[in-house]
Amino acid sequence: MDKIPVAILGATGQVGQKFIFLLADHPYFRIAELVASQRSAGKRYAEIANWKQTTPIPPAVAGMTVKYTDDSLVSPILFSGLDSSVAGPVEEAYARKGHHVISNSKNHRMDPDVPIVIPEVNPEHLDIIRSQKFGGGTIVTNSNCSTMFLVIALAPLHKAFGVEAVQVTTMQAVSGAGYPGVPSLDILGNVVPYIGEEEEKMERETVKMLGTFTGSAIEPARFVVSAQCNRVAVHDGHTETVSVRLHSKATPAQVMTVLREFRGLPQEMKLPLAPENPIIVFEDNDRPQPARDVWLARGMATMVGRVRPCPVMDIKMVVLGHNTIRGAAGAAVLNGEYMLKKGYVKP
Amino acid sequence: MDKIPVAILGATGQVGQKFIFLLADHPYFRIAELVASQRSAGKRYAEIANWKQTTPIPPAVAGMTVKYTDDSLVSPILFSGLDSSVAGPVEEAYARKGHHVISNSKNHRMDPDVPIVIPEVNPEHLDIIRSQKFGGGTIVTNSNCSTMFLVIALAPLHKAFGVEAVQVTTMQAVSGAGYPGVPSLDILGNVVPYIGEEEEKMERETVKMLGTFTGSAIEPARFVVSAQCNRVAVHDGHTETVSVRLHSKATPAQVMTVLREFRGLPQEMKLPLAPENPIIVFEDNDRPQPARDVWLARGMATMVGRVRPCPVMDIKMVVLGHNTIRGAAGAAVLNGEYMLKKGYVKP
Amino acid sequence: MDKIPVAILGATGQVGQKFIFLLADHPYFRIAELVASQRSAGKRYAEIANWKQTTPIPPAVAGMTVKYTDDSLVSPILFSGLDSSVAGPVEEAYARKGHHVISNSKNHRMDPDVPIVIPEVNPEHLDIIRSQKFGGGTIVTNSNCSTMFLVIALAPLHKAFGVEAVQVTTMQAVSGAGYPGVPSLDILGNVVPYIGEEEEKMERETVKMLGTFTGSAIEPARFVVSAQCNRVAVHDGHTETVSVRLHSKATPAQVMTVLREFRGLPQEMKLPLAPENPIIVFEDNDRPQPARDVWLARGMATMVGRVRPCPVMDIKMVVLGHNTIRGAAGAAVLNGEYMLKKGYVKP
Amino acid sequence: MDKIPVAILGATGQVGQKFIFLLADHPYFRIAELVASQRSAGKRYAEIANWKQTTPIPPAVAGMTVKYTDDSLVSPILFSGLDSSVAGPVEEAYARKGHHVISNSKNHRMDPDVPIVIPEVNPEHLDIIRSQKFGGGTIVTNSNCSTMFLVIALAPLHKAFGVEAVQVTTMQAVSGAGYPGVPSLDILGNVVPYIGEEEEKMERETVKMLGTFTGSAIEPARFVVSAQCNRVAVHDGHTETVSVRLHSKATPAQVMTVLREFRGLPQEMKLPLAPENPIIVFEDNDRPQPARDVWLARGMATMVGRVRPCPVMDIKMVVLGHNTIRGAAGAAVLNGEYMLKKGYVKP
Repeated sequence: MDKIPVAILGATGQVGQKFIFLLADHPYFRIAELVASQRSAGKRYAEIANWKQTTPIPPAVAGMTVKYTDDSLVSPILFSGLDSSVAGPVEEAYARKGHHVISNSKNHRMDPDVPIVIPEVNPEHLDIIRSQKFGGGTIVTNSNCSTMFLVIALAPLHKAFGVEAVQVTTMQAVSGAGYPGVPSLDILGNVVPYIGEEEEKMERETVKMLGTFTGSAIEPARFVVSAQCNRVAVHDGHTETVSVRLHSKATPAQVMTVLREFRGLPQEMKLPLAPENPIIVFEDNDRPQPARDVWLARGMATMVGRVRPCPVMDIKMVVLGHNTIRGAAGAAVLNGEYMLKKGYVKP
Repeated sequence: MDKIPVAILGATGQVGQKFIFLLADHPYFRIAELVASQRSAGKRYAEIANWKQTTPIPPAVAGMTVKYTDDSLVSPILFSGLDSSVAGPVEEAYARKGHHVISNSKNHRMDPDVPIVIPEVNPEHLDIIRSQKFGGGTIVTNSNCSTMFLVIALAPLHKAFGVEAVQVTTMQAVSGAGYPGVPSLDILGNVVPYIGEEEEKMERETVKMLGTFTGSAIEPARFVVSAQCNRVAVHDGHTETVSVRLHSKATPAQVMTVLREFRGLPQEMKLPLAPENPIIVFEDNDRPQPARDVWLARGMATMVGRVRPCPVMDIKMVVLGHNTIRGAAGAAVLNGEYMLKKGYVKP
Repeated sequence: MDKIPVAILGATGQVGQKFIFLLADHPYFRIAELVASQRSAGKRYAEIANWKQTTPIPPAVAGMTVKYTDDSLVSPILFSGLDSSVAGPVEEAYARKGHHVISNSKNHRMDPDVPIVIPEVNPEHLDIIRSQKFGGGTIVTNSNCSTMFLVIALAPLHKAFGVEAVQVTTMQAVSGAGYPGVPSLDILGNVVPYIGEEEEKMERETVKMLGTFTGSAIEPARFVVSAQCNRVAVHDGHTETVSVRLHSKATPAQVMTVLREFRGLPQEMKLPLAPENPIIVFEDNDRPQPARDVWLARGMATMVGRVRPCPVMDIKMVVLGHNTIRGAAGAAVLNGEYMLKKGYVKP
Repeated sequence: MDKIPVAILGATGQVGQKFIFLLADHPYFRIAELVASQRSAGKRYAEIANWKQTTPIPPAVAGMTVKYTDDSLVSPILFSGLDSSVAGPVEEAYARKGHHVISNSKNHRMDPDVPIVIPEVNPEHLDIIRSQKFGGGTIVTNSNCSTMFLVIALAPLHKAFGVEAVQVTTMQAVSGAGYPGVPSLDILGNVVPYIGEEEEKMERETVKMLGTFTGSAIEPARFVVSAQCNRVAVHDGHTETVSVRLHSKATPAQVMTVLREFRGLPQEMKLPLAPENPIIVFEDNDRPQPARDVWLARGMATMVGRVRPCPVMDIKMVVLGHNTIRGAAGAAVLNGEYMLKKGYVKP
């Protein structure tokens, strides 16, 4: 199979750079177009990207000329890491031109006909794109980074035991805020107990993703999430403390078994970016830790530890994931892999 | 009034150093004796203290000869910052010799006849020391550092609205672990989602302190606390996200008013270390922050921010305090001030 | 004496905030006017300052209405913390209107008729302001923050032994870059071995300040400085490793004595912000350290440690100072105090 | 060729763990024995190693039973990461039993008949092991971590232009101090301007390594090094600012060319751990940075940037390397690879 040409929208940003990192040697996709703001358009990528990754810009990408978000594109699939200040109309415009937009941006996530997809969790939600009115093009999103790991950890519990309520407190890495993002004066030796709109995103995206696709609409799951979001002095990796009330009572051992045995279609289909186990369960009482565990399964796993009884709800646990890989660019690429193999997008 | 001579047990440790910092110019107390392990005994304090404070060792203390925890002491009041590996029997032995031991150590906190006291919150618990069987001496404790701020924030809510359940996640500073304490390899750019015994302490000390003194026993409050404790790369200041279920429903505005108006006996008595307001309430949505706010009221206030509805419980909020001042040495000194003025200890 | 009204130019920036912190209760000066960019003008200070200090905005300042840098001012003395992108013409315009501009900005430092003054080091350079052609107004500057501590440490050595060459490597705090300043993605767990223009400033300002005022010009000192400047993950405090070649050979003990005994006119005149000893010398081999020592003498001292022979030059040592106090706002205020008491500025 | 069995001395320490990481899939060597202190002996490695790496313990190693440093070993080659408190006699004892000890420990480095080897720099020094009096066994060392990168950067300059004097200031990562190593209270937001014995090591090891093997002795190079060593809040990667006086004057461009073109025998022999280019030269003015560049060439390269004229010496530059890979375990493994291929050690 020839590789499918793809474009990266928002190619100079932090998520865009992670797309480049993940797609540089991808077996299905080939980076054909880089798209950014008017200021960058017409220039060589290496000149204008403020590259912040620990590996160099892939040579094939370094010399590419960047396009503008108004330009016509030839790639059928567009991976979007656009800033939310511009993503809404740009993504929609490209969808109307027939492109498949696979987006990490928040703008269309809560649109009724746009699914927020994790292929292991709610692949059936993808069918709602048939209701989209873009004339052949589509928009599919992945969730907010901190929501991602929560939903992956809740999904098997919801199926096995029924989730009735969730309390989550996050300790989020600075890479989630892009570049320049969080000023060092705000975060060195500090905790900032607020991230704009993050709690709302976690509370509403979680129930949409764990909801039911009725054939015509996505009905949100009938439980409530309460989120408290904090920024901490960590480079990569969002850590979350989670308490869950369950419909059918379960022991920590049963919960750990269900988490460990969780598999989805990406595992069955052996998609390139799919982690062997979506969830890695720790038994050591001081894990997972972002600085040690965030790169397990190449950043695509969700790590869970300290599963134990909660005296107020039923079960409490610690959840961790790589916010810019599984929580952003990697999520979108996995969506692309799944959609391609299942025929939702055509080369 | 002549100043009362006091001894500091565990004078070389981090809590001991904070006792020295707080007592160096105290209007009631005079540091008369420094007590430490056998290794330090007989030496000048300045020689053997691994002084880690940002102000120099007070000159009057620097030259004092350190005593051993087996030595007889002349001070009626002993402030103890002993390590829990030795505090149990040492504190008890001094109490049996007639000393008033005001301790920051965990060892005796859960003894039925030992109160855990915050003078603003449960000063009446002090009366239980009449049941103590030490022959005139007494042991009084303050709570664990992370429990302190939770209890101060809950106390006015419990009185006004009735607390029914509490979820708390902490993000705790490294100074809470003493010196050498947390290795830098474990915490730079990291979160460690576990602190030994900390969750248990928060869960049981909270209900003891907010319980009722019946005249003969302390009956714990009838609600449940679920704690999740994390270490973060912060020097001083424990930040806590808290969700509370209340018996009488209350709006965030009502909660903020109750917190703001909270006063206790230390404020009325104008005790030297008492903060003017025990609780400082923030309205900015990104406060309190440890690096900015932890030294308000000389480290003796409890800061509360982001009071808002919790979709799962009733109210959620962020709580912050200085873990080695109000959460440790300052708590014990305030207990000493209160006990002296109320006649619980005699010079 | 009535307090002199002063204006703060650049009042909302990080240096401006430190001016407010230092002048809030100053015995000579009274904050009468706050001046900032057009965006802030006309608004209450508390509304538009992004206040980043650990003490609250002084109440008398919080309600003041901010003026624009084009506005006429009534204060005879203007303390300037203006950003270098605008300081040049603004400061000059105010000087031409007859104001005494005491500036922390770099723009006029290398003007032949503008002195860079440290009252302990080169107060005689102030006389060059008589050559200034502003029609009564004046501009006086203090040095760049990292230069400040180097010059204070070199000054007594240059006088006693003659400095012939200097090598300096800095490890500079993030607060030196203002707000938002250094992105956290750039500095968490990192060293950035470059600060724009900083090395040039250190190399040329040092010899200007240690040069000779001939009556009509400042002749730079005849030695060479080589600087290597780095940003590190420190909040406040620039640490510098320094090697010096001396004309008259000196032992470390002699160097330490000369540093310890150094005093200047601010000490003799007991100026409010003058540290008792301009230089504090440490004998412990692991000091000074920014997190421990930077607030000594309220941030106005220069700390020196590890004075020892250098096998390549003659003497090596470690120098530390508080970059936003002695290295910026405090330096300008001390200049103001000195100029007022010596009659260089008239109320 | 069958893989050579090797033992790792000090297998549970931080350097020992890096040996395991590097040797787990090595084409020449096979981990056959793990050796540690008596406390660990007889236990399964996974039980007693306080594993701090970001990849799991290799399965083949996890189940191995740890031996004691008094035990007889069967492996001909021993890689030693022993703590310096015990390395001296233990390494010597094993050498006397006929083993080839390739050590990262400091204890024997300055022995006249023990070489400190970097295969790219001074492979001829290895011949001095023929003078060793261990009865067939040998001891070969690599340098201290911070010395390593300095020597690699100086070697081509010394050859091309002649080094006459060196000033170096280091900013060293905490991983260099082992575990638990640097307490977080000492380094969060701080710089510690002292590392015990580090400056002496840099000053004497550098000239030994760049010295001349006369056939019977190693004559140190005839220039002087002055080192100032600091600990900073960086996880991995020592950054060094270096100033060099050269015998033959050279422009920055010439220096960069010589650094870029530097190759050694490991490159020619394509040894498994040899980086393609021993030195990577940066032209961006803010590089190299530890958090971004330390893993280039799998941690085996030395990064150099900011090559520019020094007004006091001749050339200044910034040098960076991975202190626990190229600066420790990787250096020893590369020595082992070279010694095996050149016949210094026999299977």
